[in-house]
Amino acid sequence: MEVHQQVVSGAGGESARCGAGLVSAAGKVRGAVAAFGAKLGKIARDDPRRVAHSLKVGLALTLVSVLYYVRPIFNNWGVSTMWAVLTVVVVMEYTVGGTLIKGLNRAFATLLAGFIAVGAHKVAYLCGNHGEPVVLAIFVFLLASAATFSRFIPEVKARYDYGVTIFILTFSLVAVSSYRVEELIRLAHQRFSTIAIGVATCLFTAIFVCPVWAGEDLHNLAAANLDKLADFLEGLESECFRENAPGENLESKPFLQVYKSVLNSKAIEDSLCNFAKWEPGHGNFYFRYPWGLYQKLGALSRQCASSMQALASYIITLTKSQYPEANMELCLKVRTACGEMSLNSAKALRELSEAIQTMTAPSPARTHMSAAIRAAKGLRAELSQDADLAKVMHVAVIASLLSELVTQTKKIAESVDNLARAAQFKDPEDTQKDVVINVAS
Amino acid sequence: MEVHQQVVSGAGGESARCGAGLVSAAGKVRGAVAAFGAKLGKIARDDPRRVAHSLKVGLALTLVSVLYYVRPIFNNWGVSTMWAVLTVVVVMEYTVGGTLIKGLNRAFATLLAGFIAVGAHKVAYLCGNHGEPVVLAIFVFLLASAATFSRFIPEVKARYDYGVTIFILTFSLVAVSSYRVEELIRLAHQRFSTIAIGVATCLFTAIFVCPVWAGEDLHNLAAANLDKLADFLEGLESECFRENAPGENLESKPFLQVYKSVLNSKAIEDSLCNFAKWEPGHGNFYFRYPWGLYQKLGALSRQCASSMQALASYIITLTKSQYPEANMELCLKVRTACGEMSLNSAKALRELSEAIQTMTAPSPARTHMSAAIRAAKGLRAELSQDADLAKVMHVAVIASLLSELVTQTKKIAESVDNLARAAQFKDPEDTQKDVVINVAS
Repeated sequence: MEVHQQVVSGAGGESARCGAGLVSAAGKVRGAVAAFGAKLGKIARDDPRRVAHSLKVGLALTLVSVLYYVRPIFNNWGVSTMWAVLTVVVVMEYTVGGTLIKGLNRAFATLLAGFIAVGAHKVAYLCGNHGEPVVLAIFVFLLASAATFSRFIPEVKARYDYGVTIFILTFSLVAVSSYRVEELIRLAHQRFSTIAIGVATCLFTAIFVCPVWAGEDLHNLAAANLDKLADFLEGLESECFRENAPGENLESKPFLQVYKSVLNSKAIEDSLCNFAKWEPGHGNFYFRYPWGLYQKLGALSRQCASSMQALASYIITLTKSQYPEANMELCLKVRTACGEMSLNSAKALRELSEAIQTMTAPSPARTHMSAAIRAAKGLRAELSQDADLAKVMHVAVIASLLSELVTQTKKIAESVDNLARAAQFKDPEDTQKDVVINVAS
Repeated sequence: MEVHQQVVSGAGGESARCGAGLVSAAGKVRGAVAAFGAKLGKIARDDPRRVAHSLKVGLALTLVSVLYYVRPIFNNWGVSTMWAVLTVVVVMEYTVGGTLIKGLNRAFATLLAGFIAVGAHKVAYLCGNHGEPVVLAIFVFLLASAATFSRFIPEVKARYDYGVTIFILTFSLVAVSSYRVEELIRLAHQRFSTIAIGVATCLFTAIFVCPVWAGEDLHNLAAANLDKLADFLEGLESECFRENAPGENLESKPFLQVYKSVLNSKAIEDSLCNFAKWEPGHGNFYFRYPWGLYQKLGALSRQCASSMQALASYIITLTKSQYPEANMELCLKVRTACGEMSLNSAKALRELSEAIQTMTAPSPARTHMSAAIRAAKGLRAELSQDADLAKVMHVAVIASLLSELVTQTKKIAESVDNLARAAQFKDPEDTQKDVVINVAS
């Protein structure tokens, strides 16, 4: 700062402005760095296991690079040592299950492709000096094409995608190298050993140093999703159905956003479940734990969130249209029943979430769940007493939901208009004119 | 078959049974092979570009493996030729954009990591013979940890995830090798050249042989999603709101399933959009085409599908509870209005989908859209005439949606019960006993 001050005082207006510019630029840079640091800090605080994972990757790489520094090991394997480093970098995943899947895929695909490639080499060798590269090229083309096509099979894509990549890679490398390398078997053996060492290093670090289990994450995700659904219902009760509920400016309330992350949880859930199935037993989770049930629970949670979205969008429209509040007796009853339904459902969901968290079977009494069902039944009975009302109510509900759909369709139309304008879609009138001209000419 | 026949006739009962077993096993195998073939055929017919992509990968690999067969090239690069093959296998993606992103990530990350690694080698070299491996190991540990942590930053994860992997890989390989390899610069140069050749081969094949553009797929996905939404509304109109609509066994109707794929389209849409932004202009799509708008449209489509799911679940519950059909005048009016709303919204959505497909600005007249809005408004006015009804209708809609949520919560509770049983959660009573014993002892 002092240096800057001197520059400013010692020079003319131009320099002063320049100095001020420098100071402000330095301030901006400092601000940006501080903001970036804060962002990194938040990422680390949100889940401290991220820091542990980063250090684990560093550790595994350092461990495996020792192979290079120890002369007898390096002299034995030579350049193949590289494959151990390469394996650690690509196999090390955040969760134990992810690392295990990638490691096993890599090891088995390498082994299988190595055997086939050596066989292909033997066949090509029979075709003489000129025929060999041609036969090898044909083998590579056919196997790479077939293996790539197999990745479009959903079951292969889900489980063995990485394995197929490694299969193509190893087959091509070994088959093509066989044209140049004399001691093919020794090379293949070296490569497999170094890859196995890389995989073992990864697994050791993943399992024994602060392990992150995909199964545990999946378990916690299920409980967290139920909590979010409960948050929505609690917010609804306190903002809309209480006696002196404000019922205004609902759109900005956080509870109307909370279910959104549940809606988008399918991808992470599927991958965690895929990983969890490969993990050995840990903590309360044994091997062959029924992980698939979490996917079923997740699907139901998402459907619930979907209904919440529909309800939220209806409530927001209602608030906006400022419909005159009806004060009749029935409305009060309906309101009370709504409050009971949402509060008791929320409590039931919290109980279920807690049951999952503590791994205790949920209480069979289900007081909250039955209270919610009772409120829903009571309301239905109440509404059925007024025959006219009951008759029309169901169609009215469908009509209301449909008119919501109409509003959403209108939004879609506006969005397509925006797109048409931004992307300069053709003008339909111009097209018609063109047609007319074409016909006329 | 003849051979089998002979074996069966020439041997005793045991052999006959064995032969029959063999025949049936052969039949089963033949059946399984035929089923697998049919499955592959379906995958190929569903999108013939998949076959083209598989052949393209084979072609690119064969092209790049020529480097091995041509003696002057091989003598120049030696073992580094391998990196060209490796690059083709891992960089070649289904779409042009995907290949471009991976290729650029790979090339730039290699270049950057190579420079830093050579610098690290120079620093380590100053530390003498004993210090060098220690300093190198520290560098590898620090850079690998820092780079791994950067992958948790969402922006880095979305765009440069692959680049960071390659950065760690190259840095570790070059830095660690530098302890053994004399001609480090030459090695780094060779590696970069071969990787560049691999990337160039991939890009050439991806762009010039039957290209699959992510942008085009994203564009078609947007239109297809709108068509699916229209399918739902059309199905609803013909099955529920027509005069002699069956309105039974709705659950099995395909139109009630069609929106589900729209709900899960976010992941593929996001990745296609990410790829499309990198693609050069092609067909009607110029470079810097407003791809982001497709994501906005997609979000609206998914919200619409979400409302459809709520509506569908309500309609199915209604059909199951066999609510006595009300025949009063108002009900008929509501029904007609519902039919008009769904049919006109469906037509509007079809128009929008066609506008996207043909890249023609949607007609500003919007006859269908305004007819749907008119029907919705008319219905609202109709219902408002009956003051009592109007007052209670809105709360009734919310109550109905909420009681749907209660039903869904019940399903979630059952699902958690299943999980608790299958995963042998603790019994809450046992836990309480434990507590009592602990207190007593």
